[in-house]
Amino acid sequence: MVKSTQTAELLGKMQDKDRQSLARLISLVERESPDVPEIMRQIQPRLGHAHCVGVTGPPGAGKSTLVDRMTAVLRQQKFSVGIIAVDPTSPFSGGAVLGDRIRMQQHYLDEGVFIRSMATRGSHGGLPRTVRGVIKLLDAFGKDFILVETVGVGQTELDIMEASDTVVVALVPEAGDTVQTMKAGLMEIADIFVVNKADREGANYLVAELMAMLRMYPKQSYWEVPVLATQATNNVGIDELCQKVAGHRQTLQETGQLTQRRQAQRKREFFQTVEQKVTSRLIQLIETDGQLTSYLERVEKGQIDPYSASIEIIKNKELLVNWLQGIEREG
Amino acid sequence: MVKSTQTAELLGKMQDKDRQSLARLISLVERESPDVPEIMRQIQPRLGHAHCVGVTGPPGAGKSTLVDRMTAVLRQQKFSVGIIAVDPTSPFSGGAVLGDRIRMQQHYLDEGVFIRSMATRGSHGGLPRTVRGVIKLLDAFGKDFILVETVGVGQTELDIMEASDTVVVALVPEAGDTVQTMKAGLMEIADIFVVNKADREGANYLVAELMAMLRMYPKQSYWEVPVLATQATNNVGIDELCQKVAGHRQTLQETGQLTQRRQAQRKREFFQTVEQKVTSRLIQLIETDGQLTSYLERVEKGQIDPYSASIEIIKNKELLVNWLQGIEREG
Repeated sequence: MVKSTQTAELLGKMQDKDRQSLARLISLVERESPDVPEIMRQIQPRLGHAHCVGVTGPPGAGKSTLVDRMTAVLRQQKFSVGIIAVDPTSPFSGGAVLGDRIRMQQHYLDEGVFIRSMATRGSHGGLPRTVRGVIKLLDAFGKDFILVETVGVGQTELDIMEASDTVVVALVPEAGDTVQTMKAGLMEIADIFVVNKADREGANYLVAELMAMLRMYPKQSYWEVPVLATQATNNVGIDELCQKVAGHRQTLQETGQLTQRRQAQRKREFFQTVEQKVTSRLIQLIETDGQLTSYLERVEKGQIDPYSASIEIIKNKELLVNWLQGIEREG
Repeated sequence: MVKSTQTAELLGKMQDKDRQSLARLISLVERESPDVPEIMRQIQPRLGHAHCVGVTGPPGAGKSTLVDRMTAVLRQQKFSVGIIAVDPTSPFSGGAVLGDRIRMQQHYLDEGVFIRSMATRGSHGGLPRTVRGVIKLLDAFGKDFILVETVGVGQTELDIMEASDTVVVALVPEAGDTVQTMKAGLMEIADIFVVNKADREGANYLVAELMAMLRMYPKQSYWEVPVLATQATNNVGIDELCQKVAGHRQTLQETGQLTQRRQAQRKREFFQTVEQKVTSRLIQLIETDGQLTSYLERVEKGQIDPYSASIEIIKNKELLVNWLQGIEREG
């Protein structure tokens, strides 16, 4: 019961490896089309093959060059690759200088690589959801590896990284301050640390500092987080990085952690989807239901505090039924 | 009907300007005590006097020194000041070297200044909510100005800044990369730009770049976002910064924008509170309700996709009634 026959057609063609159809399905997910639930239902049986690698770090850490060089290595090993660039400065997403663009062309012309950039502008919470949908489409398409590049380590990036199987945190020698600040956040998510641009001053110091941090706060018993020194532009350390990713993948599989991670991912997605449905309906209702509108007005004017107003709404059974029946109809 | 008479006592003492009681009420808000709704209800009539200034920017931009020096100027003008430090590297929140701490002592000993640091570690979405609560308490306590310092410009920081009346974005000359990356986010929130450590190379260039950006994308007709060069450690440009804050405040008042901003703030808080109540109850229910647990298991195992599962849940009226009646009881 795909609402549009066009979407059904796209799904069929995508199964036959049609890149154009994949691209159009991705656009539907990005636009949060009403067909998304049905798309997700249909591709569900084909999910789980791809290994998703998140690459994050501060601006200027050379993440896109790392992704570029990792892609080259993975292609030599005959793996197919999907790339999602959520970084506005990434050459993949169009924010780069001409030189970067030319360097990337090898991948743009390679049938085994699918590149998609996603806009960060103006997104308020919805981005992680759509990125997750695009990862699934690339997985269902049959990609062996999916590389997701994001900038920063804020909440949005953490949410995106939670959809990855392996998280690579890229830093540069100058990042000492950032590391200090973001310590908790970085430690929480990194499966592999990369000190890129390692020919610069301070690289050895940062590597040592990260290793000391990791010794003090070991993350899991089943995997020792490595700290790698790379120079992506000179192709130094990239083979080792890909080996570590493969090693992490193997460890996750052998220890049963991959299953656990993916279960946790699905659970999060489930909760977030229910939440999103319930609340988007509420927001819609508040703009059309007279009773709710009057609550909102009193809140806006400061005549009632937001806490008390929310309790009154939730106690109003008539309102609730209206609210929930609306979700049902939309469902 | 404050649940604990202790809380009622604290509220009474806080009204008599007892700092200790204020501190304890803040702790209740931070811990999300069950008394929070009643605290918020009681202080509601006393809100709206304080002008809240958010100060944000990347690590190392000198935000806490700016806050320190602004506090000194505001105190000379006989304003009372509340400071909330959400930045883990801030000397206010304890992440600083000894020198910073000593420098701050003037304010710690000043009865007209109340300083509170808030932990960022491990917070998943709840931080903006509690910061907002603390801002309200400081407002109800009678502070003239509340300075909120956060690091970074991720979603959490944006959420916190949305609770401010005036947002100061602090940058340093080396921040060129950051500015490029964060352009959209920075432009969206900044009411005042500060290029701090302006004695360093590149300061004039960054000021010019920001001004060019602002000319290209003017934000509002009623306020021209200024770009100030400061050297907080040498007290250069701080008077001007405080004048601009005062100017922004006056403009907001005269144009009616302050009322509009605060209405929008209350609306956001209202929505978020309802959402939070509804979803926290759902998460609780999923762990105890047999029917929901079985949905969750099927999702975790990948037997059903999260979208379809969420639709089925929402169509299940019996479940929904159970869900919402639970909220009601808690209410």
